[in-house]
Amino acid sequence: MNETAGPGVGAHPFDTATTLRALGDGTFAGRTSDDYWNFTGPFGGATAATLLRAVMEHPRRAGTPLSFTVNFCAPVAQGDFTIVVREIRSNRSTQHWYTELAQADVGIAATATAVFAQRRASWAHQTGQMPRVAAPEDLPSLPTQGMMAWMQHYDFRFAGGTPRRLSPTPNVEPESARSQVWISERRPRPLDFLSLLAFGDTFFGRIFHVRGAMVPIGTVSMTTHFHVDAGDLAAVGDAPVLGEADAKVFTKGFSDQTGDLWSREGRLLATSHQIVYFRA
Amino acid sequence: MNETAGPGVGAHPFDTATTLRALGDGTFAGRTSDDYWNFTGPFGGATAATLLRAVMEHPRRAGTPLSFTVNFCAPVAQGDFTIVVREIRSNRSTQHWYTELAQADVGIAATATAVFAQRRASWAHQTGQMPRVAAPEDLPSLPTQGMMAWMQHYDFRFAGGTPRRLSPTPNVEPESARSQVWISERRPRPLDFLSLLAFGDTFFGRIFHVRGAMVPIGTVSMTTHFHVDAGDLAAVGDAPVLGEADAKVFTKGFSDQTGDLWSREGRLLATSHQIVYFRA
Repeated sequence: MNETAGPGVGAHPFDTATTLRALGDGTFAGRTSDDYWNFTGPFGGATAATLLRAVMEHPRRAGTPLSFTVNFCAPVAQGDFTIVVREIRSNRSTQHWYTELAQADVGIAATATAVFAQRRASWAHQTGQMPRVAAPEDLPSLPTQGMMAWMQHYDFRFAGGTPRRLSPTPNVEPESARSQVWISERRPRPLDFLSLLAFGDTFFGRIFHVRGAMVPIGTVSMTTHFHVDAGDLAAVGDAPVLGEADAKVFTKGFSDQTGDLWSREGRLLATSHQIVYFRA
Repeated sequence: MNETAGPGVGAHPFDTATTLRALGDGTFAGRTSDDYWNFTGPFGGATAATLLRAVMEHPRRAGTPLSFTVNFCAPVAQGDFTIVVREIRSNRSTQHWYTELAQADVGIAATATAVFAQRRASWAHQTGQMPRVAAPEDLPSLPTQGMMAWMQHYDFRFAGGTPRRLSPTPNVEPESARSQVWISERRPRPLDFLSLLAFGDTFFGRIFHVRGAMVPIGTVSMTTHFHVDAGDLAAVGDAPVLGEADAKVFTKGFSDQTGDLWSREGRLLATSHQIVYFRA
């Protein structure tokens, strides 16, 4: 485990990884964090959170995130990047944003659109039900020794679809694409919109669950819908969040992936939807 | 029924509604169609399809749509509009696009990001299963007389969650948000990416199904993932497509909406995800 992933002192590594310096006119400077490194670039959840943070820190931002779509155009290289945030339109209670992340040697590596809203009390009804699973205290933490850097920052307790050791050859019969996992930060940090967004990208590639073998994959696009406001998130604090991920189809090099995130109390916090490239 | 919605001659009204004139430099001119009018602007599916068509008609476009997110920023007014298409990045087998629709008196009314891909043969596996429902021939067509113009162009045959007459007062107990409906064009037209995108926005507001009462609603953002290439679509032709829509949560003025679109043969063609504003 990284030293930074322990209880630690000073800034939380997730806050460090997403730190931006405002250069004015909606432009922000940032730098990739080795703490959240993935196969060929930073963990997509950290990149997405950094783009969202740029909007959050824009001086004209009003309200909280409602919808966020990030498109990964090219691997982000280790080092400095610039994010440009453009205010598209601000209405009475919603705001529309467009952002791009670029690097000198890469060009544009990611784009995102965001809708923010000032949410108000309304009739409320939750038709979705949290899966009934064992409590996180009764489940083992997934060992992450030797695995990628970003994984060291999360505690994963699988309640269903526990990943098995990947084999060089795929399963004879495809297995289920569905999994349920309690997710929390190894070094506790109260849930906010940035970490909730990143949680939605912590699900392992569905193809690993189905095939039982390692193949090259990469998220192409991820859309997250937030069903909470800041007060709702504060109520979650640093308690584990239950994630359920699934996929419906793998065809011609791409797969979908859905991910629902629930509070322990059974409240649906966010829903995320990906399209994922795979080579198999 | 509109005359244009019958068998008709000349251009199909959907093709007319999405027609664009290239002005060069990625700029296109279009005009709203009264044929697809909704409450306070054009049917969102027609606006989305027009934005996607602009990308399709860009001279540098390669491949077919993989992921498309449209954000509705303001009601589109009756009349002329301009779409600007920006090529963000073209990789070996994927392309990233950003587009905006603007009007002189409105400003920016919609934005969209699109990912296109040149899909190749791969391992394939469909985990999702089409709902088992009655055949469209055995179901009545939903009467649309007196309803909004855009609805006159579609034949809806509900197999589950058939909408009832809306009442001024909501149901005492919320009903299911799920519905299944066979969708086809009243005037036959072979399915393509544009009409498939629009089909995904034909689902009635989930809150109407749950509450049984009319309330103001509007789609804020819709993301569509395409699971087909042009050859797969050609195989569907003008046969009815089964749509299943659902929602998981209504809270603080917004709801999610999922929509799956299946071929008669049980192939998952596209999945769509909306965040919808409601006032209730």
